[in-house]
Amino acid sequence: MAEEVVLFGVWASPFSQRVKTTLTLKGVQFKYIEEDLNNKSASLLQYNPVNKNIPVLVHNGKPIVESLVILEYIDETWEEYPLLPRDPHKKANAHFWAKFIDEKFLPGMRKACWGEENEREKAVEEASELLQLLENNLAEKRFFGGETQFGMVDIVANVIGLWLGAFEEGSGVELVTRDKFPKLCNWIDEFVSSSITKESLPPRDELTLFLRKRFGSANHVSK
Amino acid sequence: MAEEVVLFGVWASPFSQRVKTTLTLKGVQFKYIEEDLNNKSASLLQYNPVNKNIPVLVHNGKPIVESLVILEYIDETWEEYPLLPRDPHKKANAHFWAKFIDEKFLPGMRKACWGEENEREKAVEEASELLQLLENNLAEKRFFGGETQFGMVDIVANVIGLWLGAFEEGSGVELVTRDKFPKLCNWIDEFVSSSITKESLPPRDELTLFLRKRFGSANHVSK
Repeated sequence: MAEEVVLFGVWASPFSQRVKTTLTLKGVQFKYIEEDLNNKSASLLQYNPVNKNIPVLVHNGKPIVESLVILEYIDETWEEYPLLPRDPHKKANAHFWAKFIDEKFLPGMRKACWGEENEREKAVEEASELLQLLENNLAEKRFFGGETQFGMVDIVANVIGLWLGAFEEGSGVELVTRDKFPKLCNWIDEFVSSSITKESLPPRDELTLFLRKRFGSANHVSK
Repeated sequence: MAEEVVLFGVWASPFSQRVKTTLTLKGVQFKYIEEDLNNKSASLLQYNPVNKNIPVLVHNGKPIVESLVILEYIDETWEEYPLLPRDPHKKANAHFWAKFIDEKFLPGMRKACWGEENEREKAVEEASELLQLLENNLAEKRFFGGETQFGMVDIVANVIGLWLGAFEEGSGVELVTRDKFPKLCNWIDEFVSSSITKESLPPRDELTLFLRKRFGSANHVSK
């Protein structure tokens, strides 16, 4: 049977983008359907009746939902370019950092860039602590995940690789400087220039404009 | 080498309890260390410097953190009584529902029982919708996870099996009735009476008292 792979996503979403990058890395042919979240398609609602959100991967008619779940499914289904280590402890470590990025890091960055103005100073300080944890995690490593190539955590970290810069530029809040976070900055350079990820990333300037339009600059937050 | 397994937890935490239940199911001998979250031990902070929280499993000196990550690590490390299906799509489904319980269901129940009083009615309605999704998920199945026995999702669903009843009793807010959620009620009956889980669960009455003392009843929320 020919494989039928369809991805429902939104171009500006890092969560959709992770799936695109992973499918590209694995060399999986897929059909991409751009969704309008203000007018969701009947197919999206049918395939994801619980969360009613993107990304949704449909593989031979079966839907898989939530970007981290989808990435793991793809990694298990297509063996080319493994994303997770086989060793259970190293794998648990990757799961931990992927969760950390989504559940702690990303909300922290959003709050620092577009949170309440009277809480900005504290939020920027907390964001700096979160960034330091990732800087420490890189230590002497080149990647968050794989030892010699991008792994699962590096793909999840697209929110650092591309979105964080667009958050900063869009909001006018500076969070990452090379003197404070040199390893993180090297990793970001590698992420945006890598032929592996470049192909599937949206243009940074369009993303910045999109975010600024949606959230405003830090001093003019529209809610 | 003899296995050395240590669990740092808190008796009233469903997240610690999941790990206890899983280790018990797998027949793994372990040492349990009860933590005081108001006065965390140096060991806990050393093993979990990022989140500084329980549960932490330390296996032969290596720490694993976050209950869902720990459960998966245990399942991969000790093969007895497999918790996750091998089929990638069924496994993705289990991952999805485990995430749903932690990220949507549990915050929804907390809000309904102990959220702001003027938002109570709406929160109870939303909680009912979340419960309906789980009722539908059970459909004709006996378990959330395994087909013939408790699986990963059933263990994660301990928050429904025991904690939800204690939430209701502690707060005085009724959410689950047998006429509205008959399958969920059958599953709860099975969960609390099963010899598999019973052994590792804290006493319901002590849990209710603990929650009432900590959060107050719904009309007397202490924050």
